[in-house]
Amino acid sequence: MAKQRILLQLDSDPQPSVFDAVVAVDAGVEHLLARCGVTVESVRDLVHGAMFTRGPDDLRQTAIFIGGSDVAKGEALLAEIRATFFGPLRVSVMLDSNGANTTAAAAVIAAEKHVRLADAAALVLGGTGPVGERVARLLAREGANVRVGSRSSQRAAAVCEKIAAAVSDAQLTPHATDTPAGIGNALEGVTIVISAGGAGVQLLSAAARTASQTIQVAVDLNAVPPVGLEGIDPQDRGTERDTAACYGAIGVGGTKMKIHKAALRRLFTTNDAILDAEEIFEIGRSL
Amino acid sequence: MAKQRILLQLDSDPQPSVFDAVVAVDAGVEHLLARCGVTVESVRDLVHGAMFTRGPDDLRQTAIFIGGSDVAKGEALLAEIRATFFGPLRVSVMLDSNGANTTAAAAVIAAEKHVRLADAAALVLGGTGPVGERVARLLAREGANVRVGSRSSQRAAAVCEKIAAAVSDAQLTPHATDTPAGIGNALEGVTIVISAGGAGVQLLSAAARTASQTIQVAVDLNAVPPVGLEGIDPQDRGTERDTAACYGAIGVGGTKMKIHKAALRRLFTTNDAILDAEEIFEIGRSL
Amino acid sequence: MAKQRILLQLDSDPQPSVFDAVVAVDAGVEHLLARCGVTVESVRDLVHGAMFTRGPDDLRQTAIFIGGSDVAKGEALLAEIRATFFGPLRVSVMLDSNGANTTAAAAVIAAEKHVRLADAAALVLGGTGPVGERVARLLAREGANVRVGSRSSQRAAAVCEKIAAAVSDAQLTPHATDTPAGIGNALEGVTIVISAGGAGVQLLSAAARTASQTIQVAVDLNAVPPVGLEGIDPQDRGTERDTAACYGAIGVGGTKMKIHKAALRRLFTTNDAILDAEEIFEIGRSL
Repeated sequence: MAKQRILLQLDSDPQPSVFDAVVAVDAGVEHLLARCGVTVESVRDLVHGAMFTRGPDDLRQTAIFIGGSDVAKGEALLAEIRATFFGPLRVSVMLDSNGANTTAAAAVIAAEKHVRLADAAALVLGGTGPVGERVARLLAREGANVRVGSRSSQRAAAVCEKIAAAVSDAQLTPHATDTPAGIGNALEGVTIVISAGGAGVQLLSAAARTASQTIQVAVDLNAVPPVGLEGIDPQDRGTERDTAACYGAIGVGGTKMKIHKAALRRLFTTNDAILDAEEIFEIGRSL
Repeated sequence: MAKQRILLQLDSDPQPSVFDAVVAVDAGVEHLLARCGVTVESVRDLVHGAMFTRGPDDLRQTAIFIGGSDVAKGEALLAEIRATFFGPLRVSVMLDSNGANTTAAAAVIAAEKHVRLADAAALVLGGTGPVGERVARLLAREGANVRVGSRSSQRAAAVCEKIAAAVSDAQLTPHATDTPAGIGNALEGVTIVISAGGAGVQLLSAAARTASQTIQVAVDLNAVPPVGLEGIDPQDRGTERDTAACYGAIGVGGTKMKIHKAALRRLFTTNDAILDAEEIFEIGRSL
Repeated sequence: MAKQRILLQLDSDPQPSVFDAVVAVDAGVEHLLARCGVTVESVRDLVHGAMFTRGPDDLRQTAIFIGGSDVAKGEALLAEIRATFFGPLRVSVMLDSNGANTTAAAAVIAAEKHVRLADAAALVLGGTGPVGERVARLLAREGANVRVGSRSSQRAAAVCEKIAAAVSDAQLTPHATDTPAGIGNALEGVTIVISAGGAGVQLLSAAARTASQTIQVAVDLNAVPPVGLEGIDPQDRGTERDTAACYGAIGVGGTKMKIHKAALRRLFTTNDAILDAEEIFEIGRSL
């Protein structure tokens, strides 16, 4: 009898995410084992339970999902899980704390529908947050000229350095985008603008956006008003506004959800996949 | 493919109720997501996870059950959940903390088999506890003349006012029932007596009960001896005693369980049901 | 419709064991209700939820598994659960905290393949730990002459007394095995040696082991190097070494896992089984 599909949901928050649980069920998970308050110290025992229970031919039917609201904690859990595996004793793992990987993938896929990424100049507002950093990393990897925007030019520069260390030949420049002059400078010649800032914080005025003659696609990942890009509606899904194709948070949400489910299904095809931003982006692209 | 039935069990206790979980499985829930220690502060995120994951056509396959031993906490969770929903983005919800709604419904349904509620005079002993208050509310709504009995006439009066505010034309009177005189007064002309007090506390002596010439049905909701109505056996299920049909806690337990399962199944027929005492009573009546 | 198989996993640790959960799924459990941090004080309510929800004919479809890393806590939970049941209102229970019962059963079954237990002289190293004590108890029950080895002769004597109180006609002698002389004395005439000490602690040197002319089977239950019996490989599974059939922790792991699953399946055949070391050993023997 074929073993049932078990997903071990490791969540760093005090309650395991209901959102992640429902999506797991809808992606075909048969038994969901949810653990909350998971720490780097406690994760090893949980992973051993996933590694040491099924034979080599059945290990692909067990997988791990890392969630929770804190992306840094999720990344630390992923590192510890990788270190726990040895040899063929491993199961597939997906990291999507705070939905950061699936959201970043959906945003870049939306942009790619309108602009060839390798030729693009892209501004990522809120570029030092977990989603923004991933958006910038995915764009840089595709050969785009990426401008990382932040209130703090130091933090923007730190993110540029971090991405450059991971992506060879990345074209990255940090921008302080908290003044009209800084924004204007960052927007020069830009064809893609993606806003990945915090909920309810406007990062770009409609006036500044429409003053640009070059923006071809604008993506706002904030569903809570005021949105990050003034004038974009959360429901926008390729909506034409001032010559740019516009996307709001709900507009990319459908794609994000499809990517999330496809990535979960992908986990159960092998026992050695590690799905972080790049792998999840490729899964999204293939849909 | 039809989506699977997911029940989000929100429990205010440190451990999610096993009782509620087993009944959920037996009512056809396919995936149970149990969360414990749920508070008004933490419930919003959990509810968002239920609201924002499935499309409009599939939302009816997700539902919420509110449980735990503290009925006041359950009511506060229900209020917060109602406030979290907006527009069509909602799922059905059942409140049954401490089994209060299903127990109250089962008690009134037992009484209704023997007495027309609109013509009845009913005494609810332990009427200020969560089950007693619900029994009184259900009886008042059906047009019965309801006497709310309590050791404290102030608390009884407060419950009467609370119910009157919710049920138009309710006939309610508070009674202090901690003295023989008070009990005697409260029992005058009563056709229904229902005891909903704490475990192991006798609220009515056999002598006082049999002295009444009018009681046609007596329901005791306490399974732990001594029972609330002296002389009633927990197993009684319409047992004739001194011209009254008598019910004990175990005797109404079968009906309570049937109502519980029917209410759970009802949740999955629509995405906008809110099942509190009245709705659960109607479901019980229709069985 | 037949009721679904529900296993209530009661774990004394802060996280419920993933290992136990996966094995439960693979043994055919349809709904797993995992509870962590379970204490003697909190277990009664959980057990009531299992006892009071299904009718007599369906109670066999609900069962309890006691796990967690602390065997003493598991034993205390089992005692409290037994005290909670009354009359026919009960469900089957399996105790396997820290895998102690399935491991002890697998070790003795491995030994029994090579030596008739009733004629055997057996030395149990690490005999005062939870696994060692169970190994000694199972061997004593089969009529073997059992030597309980420990660093502390007092602790060894206490274990002997405890087993003697439970097993009539048990042949038991305590041995301090922390010196070469003590080990040598304990090994005299022994045909079975089983090491059940802590991870990474060598309890018997290869020299001492090979000096014995009588050992026919050697079982080491420690997978973490250094192993308990020097020269035994964790993968050994009846491997011939110096005229003795040798077993390592991984070598008996397959049998242990088969016993674990068979015991879980056994739970769902009746509603009144209590599976502790002896019962689990018999299930293992019958495979």
